[in-house]
Amino acid sequence: MATNNADIANAAPTGSRQPTPHATGEADHPSSPVARFGADKPLALDSGGKLVDFQIGYQTYGALNRARSNAILVCHALTGDQHVASVNPVTGKPGWWSDMVGSGRPIDTDRYFVICSNVLGGCMGTTGPASTNPATDRVYGLDLPIVTVRDMVRAQAMLLDHLGIETLFSVAGGSLGGMQVLQWAASFPQRVFTALPIATGARHSSQNIAFHEVGRQSVMADPDWRNGRYFEMGVSPRKGLAVARMAAHITYLSEETLHRKFGRNLQDRDKPTFGFDADFQIESYLRHQGSTFVDRFDANSYLYLTRAMDYFDLAADYGGRLANAFLGTGTRFCVASFTSDWLFPTIENKAVVRALNAAGASVSFVEIDTDRGHDAFLLDEPELFATIRGFLTAAGEARGLT
Amino acid sequence: MATNNADIANAAPTGSRQPTPHATGEADHPSSPVARFGADKPLALDSGGKLVDFQIGYQTYGALNRARSNAILVCHALTGDQHVASVNPVTGKPGWWSDMVGSGRPIDTDRYFVICSNVLGGCMGTTGPASTNPATDRVYGLDLPIVTVRDMVRAQAMLLDHLGIETLFSVAGGSLGGMQVLQWAASFPQRVFTALPIATGARHSSQNIAFHEVGRQSVMADPDWRNGRYFEMGVSPRKGLAVARMAAHITYLSEETLHRKFGRNLQDRDKPTFGFDADFQIESYLRHQGSTFVDRFDANSYLYLTRAMDYFDLAADYGGRLANAFLGTGTRFCVASFTSDWLFPTIENKAVVRALNAAGASVSFVEIDTDRGHDAFLLDEPELFATIRGFLTAAGEARGLT
Repeated sequence: MATNNADIANAAPTGSRQPTPHATGEADHPSSPVARFGADKPLALDSGGKLVDFQIGYQTYGALNRARSNAILVCHALTGDQHVASVNPVTGKPGWWSDMVGSGRPIDTDRYFVICSNVLGGCMGTTGPASTNPATDRVYGLDLPIVTVRDMVRAQAMLLDHLGIETLFSVAGGSLGGMQVLQWAASFPQRVFTALPIATGARHSSQNIAFHEVGRQSVMADPDWRNGRYFEMGVSPRKGLAVARMAAHITYLSEETLHRKFGRNLQDRDKPTFGFDADFQIESYLRHQGSTFVDRFDANSYLYLTRAMDYFDLAADYGGRLANAFLGTGTRFCVASFTSDWLFPTIENKAVVRALNAAGASVSFVEIDTDRGHDAFLLDEPELFATIRGFLTAAGEARGLT
Repeated sequence: MATNNADIANAAPTGSRQPTPHATGEADHPSSPVARFGADKPLALDSGGKLVDFQIGYQTYGALNRARSNAILVCHALTGDQHVASVNPVTGKPGWWSDMVGSGRPIDTDRYFVICSNVLGGCMGTTGPASTNPATDRVYGLDLPIVTVRDMVRAQAMLLDHLGIETLFSVAGGSLGGMQVLQWAASFPQRVFTALPIATGARHSSQNIAFHEVGRQSVMADPDWRNGRYFEMGVSPRKGLAVARMAAHITYLSEETLHRKFGRNLQDRDKPTFGFDADFQIESYLRHQGSTFVDRFDANSYLYLTRAMDYFDLAADYGGRLANAFLGTGTRFCVASFTSDWLFPTIENKAVVRALNAAGASVSFVEIDTDRGHDAFLLDEPELFATIRGFLTAAGEARGLT
């Protein structure tokens, strides 16, 4: 539990410390391999335009087998990055899914070749609003076209082409990562042997859009946002982004977890101070979440990626019937949800399962009993680990992986 | 449903229009009766200090009977005020509970004498941070001591003394109003014949504190907040307060309501714009909620009243056992909750009922099936109306009201 008592409202003036992805150079020059796509390989975008001269930052773990049949693409969530199982170059912390991915882990890098790329619109090496626009030599900011989940997946497909990988043994991810998994299965069924969408949905709900809109308005209300051109002004909408993160973070947890971890416990004091300090542990924890987030994430990138999630509605692209997205698919699916996840509740995950059943797809589904909310997919959840390990092992036998 | 497409982030500069309670004079000189308490009648505060030279703005409806036995105190929620059943002087809209209170309504002003006072810390005529401090002739701002729900109730008791009312036939309210009801029953059991706590709890949960903290940080992060001295600077933290309201407003509704009312419907357009405008109706609706709220509410008052709710923990004042708060009470209780209320879910209301049962109190309880979330207590909910009408009528017979 956090003990940091940082105060968002009284945070240090902007510009005074910014170990952000842009300031550390990660946006343009990531601490990971980069695939560059020149003018001959533009990326067609759902918004109608094209992204020309872009790049994808990615990490790989393990070795591609001779048959090129053991590749697993891991798709990261809203604030994740390509550093899934190795030290994060900005935070110095272990990769965000290092319990899940690694030697002997459920996604076993001794058996599989794991690829994880920073999403389009991200800020860790794949072209996003924090990247330098090669056409102008200025940071994109809001000049970058809006990107969608389908655009992200198209870009990932180009990365796989670049890496010489025709078919994925699996594509796996939670939340926004799970949306990418579903989009992969719909857009490129021939390239996906198995799919693991976790704690996700085939569309973003009204309530989820609402929370995202609060976060965006918080960022855009910060005068240091400067219509997205803060980099050039030497400032950063730290306070607005911190508040956005605080609001979002509540939705990643559950009432039960909050009650169990924090309850009404006071922070480093016996009595309330009768003031606006962080008297309660939950306040201190949230402020810490807000202030550490702004040290590692780009505010405009937050706008773009939340927008991509809001726009996601897979059925809408298939005549309003989700099953149509998966008709005739040969992909084997394993869907997992968590009982206390109220951001992507089981009902949203089950809607995916129902559509897959209606499409005649092979699908297994597990609802995992936990009080840890949406964030459970990132945590040490033995039942999730066992499910994924078992599913991949069985599918590996079917695929002829030794 | 709102069609206003106001944009918080691009709102008019602060100070350009402020029909706020302070600017309209309501904070010091409300459009309602006022009870003033001079230096001879200080208000002892839970924080340890005293509030000297304060005032309470209130409204009354109906007539007090000769026996002075038909008075009902209505306690308002976080952003309510004393104008429960008459036109609001700031918004020009009907009173916030005019479906519930009035001639022939469940709280029938033909039978009962209804009193509603602006809470301590409010901004509509009762002393709060937007009021002028008589000692300095400056607006209080954060110089006002923190107030608690118990302080609010103590002040209301002084108002009743001032009005010559010893015993209330009933005290009723939802949310923060319900907290006041519970505090009334605990602090002044002899003065309360019946109590109607609705959609409330005996303590504020960790998750609720978390959402309030997000709202406060949003206000305090707005540079126009100026450490609470915005009035003197001719500015107002409109954007921060609007974002706070947007976040809070989501918690007043329910996933089901949002899905039913808005779903993923677009606002005044056929296709998404691939930008950050309010494409979705839910975004437009939330922005409207934010921008209209700042026209009628004081930002510092929002800080004080959310803090009062966070501090509320009735059991803590009674040795950690909620039942102790009600031991030996003769008050008749009617507790009501709503199935889709996730801010004060049924389980929190039931905890009150259990404590009342353990204390041997007379209590009836109803959980009302609705998809309208916490806000249901303010809306046209026939089962709530019937419950309150029936409960008050039966109690009135026991009380000898004709």
